[in-house]
This record gives sequence, structure tokens and C-alpha cells, in this order.
Amino acid sequence: RTLGRGHILEGHQYRMYGRYTQELGVYAREEAARLREERGFKRSISERTRSLELLQYDQGRCAKCRICILQCQKLLISRIGEDWIFLILLGLVMALVSWAMDFCIAVCLQAQKWMYGGLESNIFLQYLAWVTYPVVLISFSAGFTHIVAPQAAGSGIPEMKTILRGVVLKEYLTLKTFVAKVVGLTCALGSGMPLGKEGPFVHVASLCAALLSKFMSLFGGIYENKSRNIEMLAAACAVGVGCCFAAPIGGVLFSIEVTSTFFAVRNYWRGFFAATFSAFIFRVLAVWNRDEETITALFKTRFRLDFPFDLQELPAFAVIGIASGFGGALFVYLNRLIVQFIRKQKTINKFLMKKRLLYPALVTLLISTLTFPPGFGQFMAGKLTQKESLVTLLDNRTWAKQGIAEEFDYIGHSHEWKHPQLNVFITLVIFIVMKFWMSALATTIPVPCGAFMPVFVIGAAFGRLVGESMAAWFPDGIHSDGMIYHIVPGGYAVVGAAALSGAVTHTVSTAVIVFELTGQISHILPIMIAVILANAVAQSLQPSIYDSIIRIKKLPYLPELGWGHQEKYNIRVEDIMVRDVGYVTLNCTYRQLHDALMSGHLKTFALVESAESMILLGSIERSQLQALLTQQLGRQRRLEFLRERALSEKKQVNEDGGQKINQEVRFQISTEESSFSPPRTLSPKPLKPALKRPSERSTEIPTSPQDSGIALKNLFCAHPEDDMTMREVRMMSTCIFHKCQMAPIVTVFLVLQIAEWEEQQLDEQVNFNNCKIDPAPFQLVERTSLHKTHTIFSLLGLDHAYVTSIGRLIGVVSLKELRKAIEGSVTVKGVKVRPPLASFRDSGTSSSETEATEIHKLWDLHTSLSIPREHHPSDSDDKSH
Amino acid sequence: RTLGRGHILEGHQYRMYGRYTQELGVYAREEAARLREERGFKRSISERTRSLELLQYDQGRCAKCRICILQCQKLLISRIGEDWIFLILLGLVMALVSWAMDFCIAVCLQAQKWMYGGLESNIFLQYLAWVTYPVVLISFSAGFTHIVAPQAAGSGIPEMKTILRGVVLKEYLTLKTFVAKVVGLTCALGSGMPLGKEGPFVHVASLCAALLSKFMSLFGGIYENKSRNIEMLAAACAVGVGCCFAAPIGGVLFSIEVTSTFFAVRNYWRGFFAATFSAFIFRVLAVWNRDEETITALFKTRFRLDFPFDLQELPAFAVIGIASGFGGALFVYLNRLIVQFIRKQKTINKFLMKKRLLYPALVTLLISTLTFPPGFGQFMAGKLTQKESLVTLLDNRTWAKQGIAEEFDYIGHSHEWKHPQLNVFITLVIFIVMKFWMSALATTIPVPCGAFMPVFVIGAAFGRLVGESMAAWFPDGIHSDGMIYHIVPGGYAVVGAAALSGAVTHTVSTAVIVFELTGQISHILPIMIAVILANAVAQSLQPSIYDSIIRIKKLPYLPELGWGHQEKYNIRVEDIMVRDVGYVTLNCTYRQLHDALMSGHLKTFALVESAESMILLGSIERSQLQALLTQQLGRQRRLEFLRERALSEKKQVNEDGGQKINQEVRFQISTEESSFSPPRTLSPKPLKPALKRPSERSTEIPTSPQDSGIALKNLFCAHPEDDMTMREVRMMSTCIFHKCQMAPIVTVFLVLQIAEWEEQQLDEQVNFNNCKIDPAPFQLVERTSLHKTHTIFSLLGLDHAYVTSIGRLIGVVSLKELRKAIEGSVTVKGVKVRPPLASFRDSGTSSSETEATEIHKLWDLHTSLSIPREHHPSDSDDKSH
Repeated sequence: RTLGRGHILEGHQYRMYGRYTQELGVYAREEAARLREERGFKRSISERTRSLELLQYDQGRCAKCRICILQCQKLLISRIGEDWIFLILLGLVMALVSWAMDFCIAVCLQAQKWMYGGLESNIFLQYLAWVTYPVVLISFSAGFTHIVAPQAAGSGIPEMKTILRGVVLKEYLTLKTFVAKVVGLTCALGSGMPLGKEGPFVHVASLCAALLSKFMSLFGGIYENKSRNIEMLAAACAVGVGCCFAAPIGGVLFSIEVTSTFFAVRNYWRGFFAATFSAFIFRVLAVWNRDEETITALFKTRFRLDFPFDLQELPAFAVIGIASGFGGALFVYLNRLIVQFIRKQKTINKFLMKKRLLYPALVTLLISTLTFPPGFGQFMAGKLTQKESLVTLLDNRTWAKQGIAEEFDYIGHSHEWKHPQLNVFITLVIFIVMKFWMSALATTIPVPCGAFMPVFVIGAAFGRLVGESMAAWFPDGIHSDGMIYHIVPGGYAVVGAAALSGAVTHTVSTAVIVFELTGQISHILPIMIAVILANAVAQSLQPSIYDSIIRIKKLPYLPELGWGHQEKYNIRVEDIMVRDVGYVTLNCTYRQLHDALMSGHLKTFALVESAESMILLGSIERSQLQALLTQQLGRQRRLEFLRERALSEKKQVNEDGGQKINQEVRFQISTEESSFSPPRTLSPKPLKPALKRPSERSTEIPTSPQDSGIALKNLFCAHPEDDMTMREVRMMSTCIFHKCQMAPIVTVFLVLQIAEWEEQQLDEQVNFNNCKIDPAPFQLVERTSLHKTHTIFSLLGLDHAYVTSIGRLIGVVSLKELRKAIEGSVTVKGVKVRPPLASFRDSGTSSSETEATEIHKLWDLHTSLSIPREHHPSDSDDKSH
Repeated sequence: RTLGRGHILEGHQYRMYGRYTQELGVYAREEAARLREERGFKRSISERTRSLELLQYDQGRCAKCRICILQCQKLLISRIGEDWIFLILLGLVMALVSWAMDFCIAVCLQAQKWMYGGLESNIFLQYLAWVTYPVVLISFSAGFTHIVAPQAAGSGIPEMKTILRGVVLKEYLTLKTFVAKVVGLTCALGSGMPLGKEGPFVHVASLCAALLSKFMSLFGGIYENKSRNIEMLAAACAVGVGCCFAAPIGGVLFSIEVTSTFFAVRNYWRGFFAATFSAFIFRVLAVWNRDEETITALFKTRFRLDFPFDLQELPAFAVIGIASGFGGALFVYLNRLIVQFIRKQKTINKFLMKKRLLYPALVTLLISTLTFPPGFGQFMAGKLTQKESLVTLLDNRTWAKQGIAEEFDYIGHSHEWKHPQLNVFITLVIFIVMKFWMSALATTIPVPCGAFMPVFVIGAAFGRLVGESMAAWFPDGIHSDGMIYHIVPGGYAVVGAAALSGAVTHTVSTAVIVFELTGQISHILPIMIAVILANAVAQSLQPSIYDSIIRIKKLPYLPELGWGHQEKYNIRVEDIMVRDVGYVTLNCTYRQLHDALMSGHLKTFALVESAESMILLGSIERSQLQALLTQQLGRQRRLEFLRERALSEKKQVNEDGGQKINQEVRFQISTEESSFSPPRTLSPKPLKPALKRPSERSTEIPTSPQDSGIALKNLFCAHPEDDMTMREVRMMSTCIFHKCQMAPIVTVFLVLQIAEWEEQQLDEQVNFNNCKIDPAPFQLVERTSLHKTHTIFSLLGLDHAYVTSIGRLIGVVSLKELRKAIEGSVTVKGVKVRPPLASFRDSGTSSSETEATEIHKLWDLHTSLSIPREHHPSDSDDKSH
């Protein structure tokens, strides 16, 4: 509860002037007590009001009844702290949001269709309507997002991944972001672009949880707990996926895979509970709205149950898996390439930056032009929305037989896939190729959007293509034992969808999502095989789309260890640690502290017992050290010193009748300081070193009253962070000098005195009382393997860890080093780089080798004590003679 | 690589006599180098052989071809270290084991049926056959398990949970256990008792992984890594469930929920990969064996897809969930009660202990008698095996309509449920009640068996009961809009099965297992709702069956935090820590070390800088300290001292011509030791304290030659662990005395000298060189919350953690304290106990309160240094005047 010192200084600068410098710790404690009392007071007020009400009710007739109600109310409020209430509320809200959003999107899409249908007479007007509508919507979405909350753009899963790791990205969880995300997403999806709802929904659900948590904290204290909030965020991610696809299990698993590194199984039930409730409400709303007869899957399939597939079809499924793996990696690569291209092209970039809405509009224009149904869109079922194409792709009938598009009754939207001149295969190929780059391009637009659903549709189309080919190849099925079982291309589409989306996101749980989306689990083995193969291929080629975005956005995140990471067991902390640790000793002077602060930009410093022993005691944040320095050398102390100095001068002036001030001062300096010759002339030579030493900054020697102000300013600001405007300084010096009626020349001597005072101050020992110290920073040993280090860093969400050897600080490992080590040894672009020392230890040596560390390093320190170094038994034997 | 010292002592006692005492560290290093060379030598031999072969092949014709093969071989061996090869092998082996086991079980069950069927003429013989067969099988299983590996009895999941937490239970992962588990399980399940295959299969798979790992370590070093092996064990658990039920996804999830506390998402793919492969092979074997036409679910259901259930049926599903929750808790309670009853009843226990096979035989006799089909079995479908009953229960037709058992054509085994006098409802109720206690009883038999499958069947029966009732209540279904959708009781059975098994095991993933087992996901929402409700109820009443067994077996495991654990955020480490920490200081004497070792039974001691500073440097294991003490005071050193002493005596004897030995010795003592009066008479007074001081043991004063031997023995054995037989001592003393030609009376003086020598040795400072020190034991802060402590303990698998405050050791928390704190505050039998101090901090204060610790404790230590205590600015200002 030691409050941020700098903050207090700014706020209560003058009020707490006297006490601050003397006993800030006491002040902070008092302040905390005051706050606590205030809180208690608020509570007691509300209690008093309640008891007052109780009394009033007592006078009424049914007092008992009302007491009962009051007790219920009390119980309710106490219960509000419980997790399940929060989760139910979260699920409910998210289901409503999801359903309302779906409704709006459906209306938007219908409006576009209606416009397009109504203008059938004039193809140009039709084109205009077809193109303008999405351009306007996307532009609005981009503009709205940009104005309200630019953080809402994009998927949001990368940010959630970072937040769940413990990094604070506060602006990502505000009400503004929530509004921007929901409105922006609705418009973006309503435009009919190949964008997804799922990634943003994870973010929306997290936003919702954060806001709900804030709202609920009005009732109880439990909602203020940080670790609890992170647990709730993890559950919210599951809810996001769950209510987006009505897939509770898949949602939980997907959110775990995508956002977590280590998952606490005890939080499992939260995700399941909330996601199930949310999915339930989401589907019940559909039933109540008469969209559905009962609760079923979102994209229900009707494949035959008795013989879903033949064993001999499995190679085809495996091919889908492997091809999807390559496709997924290509998608991620393409997506990154587009982003990097846009960023690198400075002329384009400048132009686009100026007109922020131009890029989204241009991309939308291009994509919607190409999908214009009477134009190129006729070759790629451009008329169908994403949902419609998915429904048709998962159809359980065969579109083609013998390679020729058969004339069966295309019900629903399936006829869109049939082009009079082209057969279904070519349509599908065109669809896949066009949608592939369109999706990769569209997901780079700065609107709230995800890539899951577009990729899912492309995967389904690819699977359908393979399935239709198989059906054409084996018109009577493969099974040889009497019965004829036709091949079901819809099953292939399901497999393809799961495999490609799994490859892009590097998850296995897309398989589960697919089961829940289609309501059928009969293809479980082919799907699992395809998804695993796709993951194996994609993970060895590219990072997942989310990790890719994390890298592009340079979010503070630790990359995963790859699939084959044997070499991780061989790299040790000593290979990657930084040996030159920024530290402060317990008995250091302020000068050393200052030098340490100046030497680098470390966020935390190790606190060691002494520079010789290097025994790690704790770690201190930079801000704390700066506060210490400010406390010692800051404006306040300087001002105080100046004022007292001026007052004493004035007193002297009063005593001596205003005579011989200059001489006095000069004399004083010359007597008090022997190492420092008093400057008779204003030659800069003897002054410069004295001024420079404390903080190594270039100081102008005052040769005029103005210059003296500059010098003063330099002296007032002990370190760069503590900045003072020139005006302030001049005003202050003027004020002081005016008060003391001293000539500007006196300033020079004051400057000298301050420099001297500063020197004195810097040579004093730092008082670490009241300084906030992390008393147990995480420690590793030299021998800790990279694998273990990675585990610990991701488990505990560490930023850095000190490497110690029997208490002695010998190094530090931060996220940066770890990231470098992992990315160096994980195959990135085909090159494996191992830290130089790691190669000396071959895999032949087991890891349990030398966990014991030699104590003699520490021992050497203690030889100065009167300890006999080694006790050979012969020595003692000799003695007995 | 500092080898266990005691071990070396035993082995190379005489060989390394001289060097050991002087430079053990050097020796250990040399030894290690020798071992390394040996290993390298082995490798080089094999390489030489290979190159020799290469040369031979070169002389042959197709040399190139062979070189190529060799390279392939090399590649293969290098690849063998990779995870996926291991996982494929594991999956393959487990699928084969599972399939073979299923085959054997089916044969066993068929044999029983055949016997039963063949003896239809004589009901007594029939009964005898029906009863004897399982009794023999179970007895054999119990006997075999007991003889080969008693660890194989029971489920194995509790043990795996403990092992995965990092506890070493070595005997649970041996080949013997594997054999016992597989054979025992096959026999147990072949008997037809209500036992499950799934729990033991988790254990079997882990065993398989451990053995495979051992086998593979012959090829590459990677298999020796411990953390890798634990990762593989986690994957193996998934394989176990996966290939048991052909449920890869459910298997992975179930194994995670059941065995892990924190799950590394990066290990996810291992489980999925291996489980999928295993399930695939398992089902392919069935297809190849012509049992199935293609790969489908194990218990395939054929519920209608278009309208699986009505929204208004959901309350019924919720009722199933809640009832299952109570049922599950009751099952766990009943199971524990039976075990405790058997244990407590000492007379029964004694009897049963003597005849180990009696208890299994009696239980089997009871259960098989009750299920005898012509007897009571006719009312509970006793003829059906577990699998058959499950298939009939999941049937998609309705058995009863309007409350009367309808005469429809019972195909398959469904007719077993129809009794001429009773209706289906009564049969079902009897089945549920009987099977409930039978399963709870049967799982206490000491054979390899699980409880999952019996519970699953009971749940299915309960669901069926509710479903049939609903069907009788609403004969035309509930849906009101025109179409008639009959109620599907099979769907209720699926829901019941998932809910009850979920309640007993405290898992949500039973839902996924059910989907995979039945091949239908249409009932996802009812199942999820029921499972979550069942979990909520069961978790608030009882621990899971596995945690219950862990408690019964007293395995070292940390209990989970419960559902509502707000109070955990308020309990802090300072409330539960032990403040009296066993420590040794860096500059302590051997006496202090000895006292510390004697004072308690701590496994590890903290190493602090000094008793004043208490700065934690590391921790040392007890064994290491004992080795240190042995090194200083052990047999070797004593012997050496004695020998040298004797030699010098002898020299003197030789010099002085064997005269005046006694006088010499006495004189020597009297001159050398001033604080100690030389004993002229053998009165015990002055001797006793000197002898007692070193180790506080009662020593007999030697009054005869034999007694001198005892005294010698006492002196030779510095501490109880280092024991020497009387014979040895006497032999040695005789040998020494014989050599030196000294009278027995001399012994007494030798004893005195040894005591003196011991005193000297004990007062020397401990040399911690070459001592294995854990240089970075885990540290907590006083303010760490119980919640966070629990997280860290389960994350890192800690056994204990030190509590420090800016480097100062102030306490220690071990698993024991943590367990006590959790079990104290989690509702156990309705009473909540909170640590006394926790109540002072109300929930009103936020947890971020005072993470800063006062440094003045440490500061106080350093005031002895010449540090000005506090620098008030006024001081320095005063100076400037």
C-alpha cells in the first residue's frame, strides 16, 4: 500500500510539503487508513439505512414478511459474489448479443439481396447496388471502429492470448471497445465480405466479462481480485466461441488451445458451464423466434449413420489433411505478406494513412466486383452468402457423377454451383482459389473480423471437391461386399473444413466444433486424422494465424515450443542468460543508484546484499528507485535547500545590514570547501567538473542572469524524467532572488552551493525503508533447461527471472532472451540456430547431470572469516601427538 | 553428478580409503568421467562394428546400396528419438492390447454362457457353473495380482494422478505390474462381474509408455529425460481411455480432467495424436476381424436426427442430471464406506488378511448368486453381460407404452428386460438398485478393475427408466405443432449414462465420451446440461471416486480447491506456514549439523548465510547432510584415527622397547587435556559427560574387555543410521590391539581419546564443498494467498516452499500444511474451519493491499555497519550552515 510516490508529489505538492520529505511512509499508511475508513463509512451508511428501513417496516403490518424479503435481498447480494451467477449472466448476455447480431446480419444480407433482386432490369444499377452496399458498410465499420476504439479492429484473439498471459492491455477491455466491436462486426459481416464472426466474438465475450465484472464489483469485493478476473476471462473466451457456433465443448477446447499455454483444470467447469448455458440460450432464442422447430445443430447434416465411410476412403481423407496443412500455412503466409506489403510500401502507406477509409473501400470494391453474380461471380457461386455456401457444401447428396454435372433437382441454393457451361469441379476450383486470396486480403481490413469462418468455408469447398472427385471415380462406392454404399461428398466437405481451419489456427478442437456444428459425429476418425495431419504440416511450416498477428503487432508474448523440441532439453539457462545484471546493493549510495538508473532501461533492478557477496534479496522496480532518487535530490529538496539557504542569507543580510553579501558567500564557500577553489573569475574551468560529475550532463556555465537560470534548471532536474520548464525555474529563481534582494551574480554561488549539496546528497547511503520491494523474485539455476524455463515462464506469466547460484545473483533471463533462444532454435525459414554453448553438450549426456552447483564460489567469500579452509584428518591426528 | 556418498563408501571401502577422506570431490568427478568414458566406449564399439561391417560390405558387390541402407538405418535411429514415433508405437501396442483383451474377455463370457446353456437340464449344476466360473476367475485374478505385483490392484488412476504430479511411485511402472494388470484385468472382466476396463487401462497405457520409454532409451538419450517422460505419461493416459472406448477426443479430455491439475496445451497434440491412432487401430482390427463392416462407434445408436428432443423435455433431463449428482455422491460414499468397514472390523480383517482370496471369492459368490438368471437374476436382466445391457438400454425404441409393457418384437437381447409378471419399470428399478451396491462392492475387490463402466451402465438404466416413464406419460410426444414426435427413451439413457459417470468421476468430458461411444451428438445440449448439473451436485457433496481412493490410500496428493473458493483469496501463507524452520548455517559446526539432524525428521534443510541474517541460500537434503557428518565422523575417519593412533603407539613401543605404554598414554592425556582430569581409577563419574556430549546417547563405561568393545561400537557409529555389527567392532578392536600388542585396559584410554577426537571433530566448521545443494528452492512471500500458493504448488509439483522476506527465511510451507489449510476451509462434512488469523482480514480489503514488505527487519541487521540511520534533509541543511 506504499502509494506511487511521484503521484503523491504532483497532487499534494504543497499540502504535504513538510511531512513528505520526513516521513512519507507514515503518511502513506495514514492515507491508506483514511481510505479504508472511508470505505467502511460508506458501508456503515448503507447498513444504517437498511436498519432504518427495517424499523420503519416494523411499524407496518406485515413486518415479518418484509424482514424476510430483506434477508433474501441480503442473501442475494452475498450470493452475487459467486461464480455461477456471474457465468449465467455472462452466458445470457452473450447469447443475446450473438443472437441479436446474427439477426442484424441476416437483415443486412437480405437487404442487399432484395436490392440486387429489385434492380434486375438494369445490370449497371444492379452492379452499383451490389458493390456500393458492402463498400458503404465496410467503410462505416472501419470509420466507426477507428473513431470509437481502434483497438476493436481485427480478431482480438491475439490480444486475449496476451492478456491471459498476464500482460495488461487495459484499453482492450473497455466499454468503448465493446461498442465499437459489436457495431463494427455487425456492419462488417452484414456486408457479405468473407469475414468471420468467431475471433471477434472471443474478444466481445471477454469485454463483456470485464464489464460485467466491473459492474458486479459494485456489489461485492470479490470482483476486484485480479486472478479471479483472469479466470473469468478464460471462461469468457469459451463463451465467445460457444455462443457463436452453438458449440459449447468445441468452444471450450478451442479457446483453451488458442488462448492458453497452461490450463488450470479447476477452471474447466467455468468454461463448460458458461458456454453450455450460452449455447443453450442462443439456440432457444432461435426456437422461440420460430426459426427452428427444436434445438439442433447450426449446420445440421444428414449423412447416413450405418455406413458413414469405407476404410479404403481413409487415404483420401489423409490427402485432404495434408493438403489442408499446406493450404493453411499458405494462408497465414499470404495474410502476413499482404500486411507487410501494405506497411512497407511507404508511398501507398502514406496515402492510405491519410485516407483511412480508402483501403477498406478499395478492398471491398475489388472483392465485391469479382463476386458480382452476373459477372465473374457466376463461376464461383458469388450470389451465395457464406452461410448458404456452407449449407450447400455440406449437402449429403452428390452433385456430380461420372465427371458430368448431373441434372438432379437442385433444391435450396445448390443450383448456384451449377453453371450451364462449366461442370461443378471447375466452379469449385475457381471458388476455392478466389476465396482463398479474398479471405486473406479481407482479413487485413481494419474492421472487427476473424478468419475462422472464411477458412472453414474454403476448407469445406476443398473437401467437397475431393469428395466429388471420389464420387466420380468410384460411382458405386468402394465397398466390395455385396452392398453398394455411395460415396458421400458432404462428409469430405466436413473433413476439409475441419482440417483447413485447424491448420490455420493450429488447433485440434476444430474437429469438435465441426461435430457440434453439423450435429453428426460419424466421421470422427477421418476428421481426427485429417486435422492432426493438417496440424502437423502447418505447424512445421508457419506459426498460427494468431501467433502471426502477435508477431506483426509485436505484442509481448512468448512463442510456443515447436513439435520436435528435443534440442530444448539441451539448451540451458546459462547459455542464454544476460550476465551483466543491473543491480543495486543494500548499502549503496545515491550516486550508485543514479548511475544504475542511467546505465540502461531496465524495468526492474535486482537488490543484492553487497557487490561482493551478490546475494539476491529481492527486486525493485525502476519507478521505485526513481522515487527514491527524487525524494533525495528532487525539486522539493532542492527548493527546500535553496529557500533555507536564501533565508539564512537574508537573515545574515538583515543582521549585517545588507553589506558584504557577495564576500560572505564567497568566504563561506572557501572556508567550507577545501577541495574546491572559490571561483574568483567566472572562468568555466574549475566549475565544469563539479557540475558534470553528479549526472554527466552538459551544463552551461552562467555568464549572464539568463544563463544562471539555465544552470539552475539543470540543477533542479536531477534526472531527465523529472523535468521542469524554463519558465518555472526562472520564476522561482526570480522569486527567491527578489525575496533575498540578491544580485544575479549571487546565483552563480548558489549554483555552486547546490552542486556541492548535490554531491553530498549523492554520497549518502540509500534508505530503502518505505520502498516497495518484491521480496521473492523468481529464481532459476544455470542448469535449468530451456524447456523448463519456458514452462515456468508461461506457467507463472513471468517477465524475467534471476539466475542464482546458492543465493548469488549471476544472471538474468527475460522474455526477450527466451524468445530469441526459442526462435533461434525452432525452425524459422528452415534455418536452425542454436546458442553457441549448447552444441558442446551433446544429447548423450543426460539432463540430470549436474544439478549440484559448486559452493566454492560462495566459499571463497567467506575465507576472509577465520575458517580453516580444509580439514584433512591427518591434521587433527597430528595435533593429538 | 556428485554420487551418493554412502554408496561409494560401501562399495569401494578399502580401495579408495586414502583418497576418499582427502578429496572425495575429485574422486567423484573421476568416477563420473570413467563412467562417461565407458559409455562412450560402448558407443564407439558399436560404431566400430558398424564401420567394420561397412568395410565388409564394400568388398561385396552392391556396396552403394548397402551404404544407403546403413544411412537409412542411422536416420531411423536418430529419428527414433522423435515423439511421434514413440506415440505411434504406443498407440499401436495399446490398440493391440485392448483388442486382444476384449477378445479374451468375450471368449471368457461366451464360455460362461455356453456352460450355463449346456446345463439347462439340471438347475443346481447350472447354478454351480454360473457361480463357480466367476469365483475361480476373480480368485485367480486376485491371487495372480497379489503374487506378481500387488500395485496392479484397483483402478490405477489415483496413482497416475499422483505420479503426474511429480511424485515418484516407481513400483507402479514396472513390467511386473504390467503383466499383473493385463492378466488380472482380463480375468476380472471375463468373470462378468460389474467391473470396468477404463481406469486400469489408463494405468496399463502408462505402464506401456514407461516400458516403451525404457526400451527406446537403448537407442537414444532423449528417453532418459524426466520431464519428457512425464509428458509421455500424460499422453499415455489419453491413449488408455481412447483405445478403451474408441473415443480419442473424450479420452484426451477425460484423462486431462482426471489426472492433471494444470495442463500444458503444448502437450495436447501428443494425446490427440496417440489416442486417435490408437482408436483407429483398435477399430480397424474389429473391421479386419469381420466384427464390423466399417469403422463406427462402439455402441452405435440410431436416434432420429431431425427432431432429437423437444425443448419441453429439458426439465426431465435436468432432473436426471440432479438425481445423478446425488447418486454419484452416494456411490462414492458407499464405496468408501465399504472399504473403511472392511478395514475397521479387525476380526474380519485378520481373517481376510490370512486368506487373501476369501474376500474376493465371497463377494463374487454373493453377486453371482444374486444375478443367477433363473433365480433373482430374472428380475434384473441378470443374464445380460455389461455390454449387452448397455446396447439394449441405448435402444432407440420404446419398451413400454401407457405404463404396460407392450408386446412388440424384442429383438436382440431386449427381451431379457421383459418379465412375464413384472413390467419394465420394476425390472429397471431392481436393476438399478442391485447394480448400484454390487458395483460399489465389486470395485473394492483387490483385482485390477475400474468403476467407470458399471456406473455408466447404471446411469443408462436410470436414464432409460426416466425415459420410459416420460414415454408412458406422453404417449404421443410433447410437441404440439401438428407433427407427432414420440419420446425416445434411448436418448434419456444416454443422458443418464453421461450424467452418472460424470458425477462419480467429477468430469464433464463424459459427455464427449458418450458422443463418441454412441456415434451421435444430437443430444448434446441435454447431455451437457445434465452432466454439469450432476457435477455441481456431486462436487459439493463428495470428492470424486479417484480423490476418495487417494485419501483412502493416503497418497501424497494436493486436494483441489472447491467450487466456491472465495475464502481462499483471504487466507495467506503467513497464516499456515511453519515458522520453526530446520536450517543449517553456512558456517555452522558439525555439532550444530548433528543437532539439526537429530531434532526432527525433515527431508530437506534450508541453508542460510548465518543465524543472524537468515538469508536463504539454498536447501540441502537430509541425506547430503548425513553424508557430510559421516564423512567427518564416520567409521572410516574413526578407523583411520584409531589405526594411526595405534601405529604411533606401536612406534613408541618399538622405540621404548614396549615399556611404560600405559603410563605414557595416561600422561599424554593428562598433559594434552587440561579441562579433563585423567581417570586414575575406573570410576564412571568424570567419563560420562565427555562421552555423552557428542551425541546424547547412553554409553556404557567399559569395565571389562567386552564392555570396551561396546563402548568402541558406540563411538564408531556416529549416528543411528551408520550401524556396525558388534562382531565387526570386536574383530576390529581385536585386530588393532593384537597388532599393537596392547592390553584390554588400553582400550579405555583409546575410547577416551576417541571421545576427545570426536569433540574436536564436531567443533570444526562444516565444509559444504562437494555437497549437493539445491541452489534455488522455491520461495513465497508472507502475503501470498492460499489460492496462489495452491496454484504454484500444483503447477510446479512442489513438495515444500520457503517463505522469505527480502532474502530472510521466515518460514516454510509444505504440502501437509497446504492440505490442512485447504481441507480445513473446504466444506468437509459441513464444517468450515478457517485458519485463526484469516478471520482478521475481511473480504473488504483487497488482495493487492500490502505486497510491499518492510525492509527494516533486514535493515536492523545492517545498523552495525557505519550507516547513518536516517537522512533528514534538515540534517544536511544544517551542515551547510
